[in-house]
Amino acid sequence: MNTKICYTPIGFVENDFNEWTPVETLRATSMRIVLDPKWAPGTLGLAPGDWILVLFHFHHIAEVKLQLHPQDDPNVPLRGVFATRTQYRPNPIGATVARLERVENEHILHVRELDALNGTPVLDIKPFVASFDRPKEE
Amino acid sequence: MNTKICYTPIGFVENDFNEWTPVETLRATSMRIVLDPKWAPGTLGLAPGDWILVLFHFHHIAEVKLQLHPQDDPNVPLRGVFATRTQYRPNPIGATVARLERVENEHILHVRELDALNGTPVLDIKPFVASFDRPKEE
Repeated sequence: MNTKICYTPIGFVENDFNEWTPVETLRATSMRIVLDPKWAPGTLGLAPGDWILVLFHFHHIAEVKLQLHPQDDPNVPLRGVFATRTQYRPNPIGATVARLERVENEHILHVRELDALNGTPVLDIKPFVASFDRPKEE
Repeated sequence: MNTKICYTPIGFVENDFNEWTPVETLRATSMRIVLDPKWAPGTLGLAPGDWILVLFHFHHIAEVKLQLHPQDDPNVPLRGVFATRTQYRPNPIGATVARLERVENEHILHVRELDALNGTPVLDIKPFVASFDRPKEE
């Protein structure tokens, strides 16, 4: 259980938000995912309008909240970390489905609907595929 | 770009499939995610029937295919790794929305619809939330 699994970021988020910002503001902003140019061939086939699943590292987080009140509201019953989307996780990985606006020079992805701060390390980008990413019965 | 980000698995998948198995077979099988018991408080609020996003490490993969023909079909045009769901990724992280059947002793999650082999390290579990996990326009 103690084996560590290590990843090297494929790129980083660039935008104007360096400190905590409401999710709604982040999502409404066009921002960039700048990939290491060595991965440029890996973007072949990504097209404007595609929805992509972005996996990223919450780089400002160094604390785990094993249980918490959602929305920081003490009137909402406690929930376990795995039953919330809090950033304070044992492995602080974010996962958000974002919209690709365009790809610049094969390695700069312009996206919207991504709730990530400036400098966020990006671990992976996948195309949204219903069979993986959507509850079956919907 | 070369800073490594390291995670410790929160648990491991247990099922009868130790070698490559068709995704359809895996998804149809009830299997277990056995969490480190220290994370048991983190499952508070998870309930049978919930859909959960499972992030896991493709532990059999040690190769990157930067471009490939989807479905291994040479007639399908080449695509970049970030435009496919292949396991052969720079950071081999899997992401699948699975269905929670029940939680045993607060740390053993019985799930279906998960396409992971026996022994797969699990990195995170999140509740499926439409605002994070679904294209906006649907």
